[in-house]
Amino acid sequence: MIKYFKADPWKVIEEGFNPAMNEIAESVFSIGNGMMGQRANLEETYTGHSLKGTYVGGVYYPDKTRVGWWKNGYPEYFAKVINSTYWSGLKIWVNSELVDLNTANVIQFHRELDMYNGLLYRKCNISLKNGIHLNIESTRFYSLINKEFSALKYSLTTSQDCEIAIENYVDADVVNKDSNYDEKFWSEIRQESIENKIFVTVKTNKLDWHLCTGVKFSLFMGDNELVANPKHTTREKFASSTYILQAKANVCITAVKHAISASSFHHPVDSLELHTKKALEKMGASSFESHLQMSANAWQEKWKSSDVEIDGDVEAQQAVRFNIYQLNQTYCGDDPRLNIGPKGYTGEKYGGSTYWDTEAYCLPFYLVSSDPSISKQLLVYRYKQLGKAIENAAKLGFKDGAALYPMVTMNGEECHNEWEITFEEIHRNGAIAYAIFNYIEHTGDKQYLSEGGFEVLLGIARFWAQRVHWNSRQSRYEMHGVTGPNEYENNVNNNWYTSYIACWCMTYAAECAEYLQINFPTKFAEIAKNTHLNIQLEAEKWAHINEQMYLPYDEIEGVFVQHDGFMQKELIPCSELPESERPINQKWSWDRILRSVYIKQADVLQGLYFFEDKFDIDTHKRNFNFYEPFTVHESSLSPCVHSILAAKIGATEKAYEMYLRTARLDLDNYNNDTEDGLHITSMAGSYLSIVQGFGGLRIKNQSLHLDPHCPEQWYGYKFRILFKNSPVTISVNHSGTSVNNHGESDIDVHYKQQRIIIKAGDIVNL
Amino acid sequence: MIKYFKADPWKVIEEGFNPAMNEIAESVFSIGNGMMGQRANLEETYTGHSLKGTYVGGVYYPDKTRVGWWKNGYPEYFAKVINSTYWSGLKIWVNSELVDLNTANVIQFHRELDMYNGLLYRKCNISLKNGIHLNIESTRFYSLINKEFSALKYSLTTSQDCEIAIENYVDADVVNKDSNYDEKFWSEIRQESIENKIFVTVKTNKLDWHLCTGVKFSLFMGDNELVANPKHTTREKFASSTYILQAKANVCITAVKHAISASSFHHPVDSLELHTKKALEKMGASSFESHLQMSANAWQEKWKSSDVEIDGDVEAQQAVRFNIYQLNQTYCGDDPRLNIGPKGYTGEKYGGSTYWDTEAYCLPFYLVSSDPSISKQLLVYRYKQLGKAIENAAKLGFKDGAALYPMVTMNGEECHNEWEITFEEIHRNGAIAYAIFNYIEHTGDKQYLSEGGFEVLLGIARFWAQRVHWNSRQSRYEMHGVTGPNEYENNVNNNWYTSYIACWCMTYAAECAEYLQINFPTKFAEIAKNTHLNIQLEAEKWAHINEQMYLPYDEIEGVFVQHDGFMQKELIPCSELPESERPINQKWSWDRILRSVYIKQADVLQGLYFFEDKFDIDTHKRNFNFYEPFTVHESSLSPCVHSILAAKIGATEKAYEMYLRTARLDLDNYNNDTEDGLHITSMAGSYLSIVQGFGGLRIKNQSLHLDPHCPEQWYGYKFRILFKNSPVTISVNHSGTSVNNHGESDIDVHYKQQRIIIKAGDIVNL
Repeated sequence: MIKYFKADPWKVIEEGFNPAMNEIAESVFSIGNGMMGQRANLEETYTGHSLKGTYVGGVYYPDKTRVGWWKNGYPEYFAKVINSTYWSGLKIWVNSELVDLNTANVIQFHRELDMYNGLLYRKCNISLKNGIHLNIESTRFYSLINKEFSALKYSLTTSQDCEIAIENYVDADVVNKDSNYDEKFWSEIRQESIENKIFVTVKTNKLDWHLCTGVKFSLFMGDNELVANPKHTTREKFASSTYILQAKANVCITAVKHAISASSFHHPVDSLELHTKKALEKMGASSFESHLQMSANAWQEKWKSSDVEIDGDVEAQQAVRFNIYQLNQTYCGDDPRLNIGPKGYTGEKYGGSTYWDTEAYCLPFYLVSSDPSISKQLLVYRYKQLGKAIENAAKLGFKDGAALYPMVTMNGEECHNEWEITFEEIHRNGAIAYAIFNYIEHTGDKQYLSEGGFEVLLGIARFWAQRVHWNSRQSRYEMHGVTGPNEYENNVNNNWYTSYIACWCMTYAAECAEYLQINFPTKFAEIAKNTHLNIQLEAEKWAHINEQMYLPYDEIEGVFVQHDGFMQKELIPCSELPESERPINQKWSWDRILRSVYIKQADVLQGLYFFEDKFDIDTHKRNFNFYEPFTVHESSLSPCVHSILAAKIGATEKAYEMYLRTARLDLDNYNNDTEDGLHITSMAGSYLSIVQGFGGLRIKNQSLHLDPHCPEQWYGYKFRILFKNSPVTISVNHSGTSVNNHGESDIDVHYKQQRIIIKAGDIVNL
Repeated sequence: MIKYFKADPWKVIEEGFNPAMNEIAESVFSIGNGMMGQRANLEETYTGHSLKGTYVGGVYYPDKTRVGWWKNGYPEYFAKVINSTYWSGLKIWVNSELVDLNTANVIQFHRELDMYNGLLYRKCNISLKNGIHLNIESTRFYSLINKEFSALKYSLTTSQDCEIAIENYVDADVVNKDSNYDEKFWSEIRQESIENKIFVTVKTNKLDWHLCTGVKFSLFMGDNELVANPKHTTREKFASSTYILQAKANVCITAVKHAISASSFHHPVDSLELHTKKALEKMGASSFESHLQMSANAWQEKWKSSDVEIDGDVEAQQAVRFNIYQLNQTYCGDDPRLNIGPKGYTGEKYGGSTYWDTEAYCLPFYLVSSDPSISKQLLVYRYKQLGKAIENAAKLGFKDGAALYPMVTMNGEECHNEWEITFEEIHRNGAIAYAIFNYIEHTGDKQYLSEGGFEVLLGIARFWAQRVHWNSRQSRYEMHGVTGPNEYENNVNNNWYTSYIACWCMTYAAECAEYLQINFPTKFAEIAKNTHLNIQLEAEKWAHINEQMYLPYDEIEGVFVQHDGFMQKELIPCSELPESERPINQKWSWDRILRSVYIKQADVLQGLYFFEDKFDIDTHKRNFNFYEPFTVHESSLSPCVHSILAAKIGATEKAYEMYLRTARLDLDNYNNDTEDGLHITSMAGSYLSIVQGFGGLRIKNQSLHLDPHCPEQWYGYKFRILFKNSPVTISVNHSGTSVNNHGESDIDVHYKQQRIIIKAGDIVNL
């Protein structure tokens, strides 16, 4: 853990240049707009350690799988969101000396991420070996308005008259650090540099995704735009225009890049270049400042329904906004084929693919902080991939329309190649069903069931019905060979969470079928025909499984048993683990971890979190008190669930302790891996710790429930949500809670069991 | 399965050239001498499919591990016996046309492996595009006398006068098909071609193993040796000498290569080339024929104590001799740093490393068929690696001298990189301890305990004592997170076989400690000091574990339970598996295999096989009858144990059925993978099916036990063994058994419970 960035309510600030921290800063200062994004690579040449990263949503590479011993059913590839054309680079020479912060003397350096406005700003003062001092200022943003547009304004002032050469370039000859076999992923199509414009078109190998990047370059000396005649250069996957200027001391030279990055994910290959040229023409007609202003306005709008204010802890304030900011720039619901990669647009690791994190952690954030249409896109994403999920299940021997959603995917196909995850961590199917339920709880949009939701539930229910087997000795259904959310166990039998959610899925699918039969009979008949569904027969089977399913329970402790054999372990709590042996995933061999009692992330407790109303508070307490002492929280997704449950059972100190574990995960580089990119999906967990944990917010059957309390360490906090189209602010401090309904309709609030109607425009103190 | 090779009692014969079978034939016709070996690559150029393979024992490459998701404790490399310098090649042009069986018209082709004499012979007749017919004859062998020596005699007769160019070459610029990252493993040191000799020295990358290959080339026309002046060529890792001859029709031209392959595994790098030159000088002084004769004599000597004769089934006869032949050419006990790779010197796959197959299957073959000094080398191999086994255990968190032998190794370090195997398939430790027991049972050499044997047992016992844990709920020891011999289960708890052999190891270690204390008190005291052993304390702990160990038993079936949860599976026998779904390891996904009841190879039954005297015959029957129906035998190591047990319980038809499954595994390409090399270690299993299975041979406490019966399909069979320095022939047919003691001492035989002394030189009919 390093406290490196400066605390500020709305900004992340770096003061001074520290080459050892550069890759971490590149991750933290990443910017994006939900469709594309970029690490904070310095615009000018930098020969020190840097992880170049520019990412375009949907454009991926099926990198050949790397395994030691092939097992039947392994996926052939691991899909990666790949480093793509670098549009923001400038190569600058001052009296022939290349500007490079790795060789220059950096006198002053200030960098900030302005989260309120969604921009990256940098100001620095350096001296070159030739004695010339430079002031550099740059501003960069990805537009929230036009999702193919990004722009850079870069200013330079020299301490003396000199000759400056600026090479404005677009480079698609990029590498991917995470490549399995050191391949380059892009091939040349065309590059050109004409007048003040550059266009570079490339395509990915294997899948032929085309990407055209167009940049319009403008150059100013003081306030005057220069009309220069650059030297044009092109080579494979690269184009540039180089300008030679006679700079005057203390007169600012400003370069502006308007960039369009358009891909065949959204446009036909044939018209991609034409589209890029037209779009660049259009965007180039307005100034950098006007585009920035529009985008900043859109950011401010987002904050109105998603902000969390913390009073009395500026680091906590900065952290929660950083998390919200990253979530909002990773996903905006623009396209139902996009999702939330574990590193968003901030790095390559783990592929840019979709994990169950989306449904389990991220969806609840978008459900309360944005328009339901955004969350719905995440459901549609899975609906569009239902066919692939059915294929995936078929590859594993399931039939009759059973669907197994992949653990990691880009296009619906499984990418992950560890059998214990790919084939066995099947609880993900449950989270995908639960997401539909959760969405309907928030929105009441039961019609979605007729638009694809039910078909997804049906495929999932069918999977579970085939995945269990009848144990004739004990006369019960069991589910063997699974891995629960606690990935520190593999290939276990009767994981309580998995079996429980499986039963729930089948029950919910049956309920939804009944709802559709009554409310959308024609649609239901059509679905039944297409899916060869005999609902009576299948629902009977589901009910039978539900009745006879083995859900391990321990009478002595009064808790659900994580899986068969758990109670036979050495039950030694984490508190007895020497600090020198932690984290165990770095200090212990894998087998030792597996046979230990230690839990990576909420497993039984994940079930209590999802299905809290099915269990009384004593059950919550017993299970929490039993499992929490064995939980090492070595997944960034773990502490949030524990925090929320701790808050629920009144263990407020524990709740706060758990909240702290992820709040500043990336800002303070807790896991020593921020340089690889940010932990985007766990940021949602950190948000939920506050809103669902401290705030006790739930939305059930379209009612807002609150059970707030304020951590002692804070004076108070507020959070803004969008509830049934009304922006609502909930303010909590040690003397009470107030709810401000900014919307135009009355809202229904359950405050600690008490029901209150808050009229449009009203503030109610509770 | 393909019946391709011709049956013959002492030969494997190929008639006609079939390019599609070439790689399979290259494997089957492999030759070697326990220190090195070679696939049957054609000497002249062949541009069709071929897997080039020349292997030198001990010279390996630590190929960088390939894994998808790294886990703590994974080995960094996978050691491979690597394709090395190709010494036997000739490039031949006839009137400028390159001789290549892929382009020529092959009129006649005959190839045979002469197992009695240990040589590879080929004769063929081809016509070239230029109309010239050639008769080619070649004989190749690896000397059993000088283990660095191999030789080739290659004759050529043309149908008309013509010009022949022969390039005699040595090529170290070879590739490895099984390379993880397509690397070449060899680097240049030096190459020269002078007069009639070539020397090529190369070294492996990373580990710098040096290999010097020297070839003396002689050329004859008719009976006259030619003294020619060749053209010498050298390039990186390659040297050749090219001879131009004016051939006369029907006059035989003969090329002879005497080759020395010497490596830094046996010689200092400094003197390696000098050694090679001297050795070549020495070997070159005698004729090809005289070397061949000496080697053939040595082969014939080997057959005297290892042959199995089968009367009435020539295919079975050929098969068992092929298996014995391969075992004898893979391992001769020359060097305690060598072992038995799964493919011997016949291919690259699975690395050339050591598996538990050595102790579990191969050792019993060498114990009965050769001098005890050969078997002892296999024990010394593990003793020499004890330090690494202790390091290996330490990496996994074990301490105080606990030793975990690796699953796969070259030098004692673990190479295998599947966690479920590497970290969990720890029963291998048991087999290594059992091998010491077994060796002493055969030889009575208890002194070996004082020479390293006990230290190995101690390290192993200490491992088990730490590997179990106390289950305080049920007040018993348990062992979690293991993989038994049945690799169709992973990460199971309380695998009966593993837990049983663990207890046995601890008990045996305590017994051996006691023996040493009494018989070698000084040595024992020294060992105790070096290993910080308090035998009383440790033996007490071992005894406590032994008493309180949980060994799962099923009261309903009266069988040992393979592991916790096994009886909760769907217990559907293999007979109900559709043929179209087999082998399940090709037809089913891995997760489905794991949660199924199907058993890859003997697991509980392996324990009954090792410890047969601990269990009554009814226990054998119940367990065999319960587990055999669930066993798919998808390991080539599986059927032999079942065959031996079936024979023991009188299920003779089953025993024969099981025997058939491996007898001709490679000859008939059952598993469709013979092209990758031969299944050397399973050949031992096939041998044991006859000798231990049908013959009922056991050697216990240095007594020979026999309980023979003859499969109905055979008239009879004989097997020759070496028992207490006496060659003994046991002949079995449907009317009885006779035992012929060819040795100079009387032997003690237990025939079906009856004890008989057979005097030196006597034959006794039983």
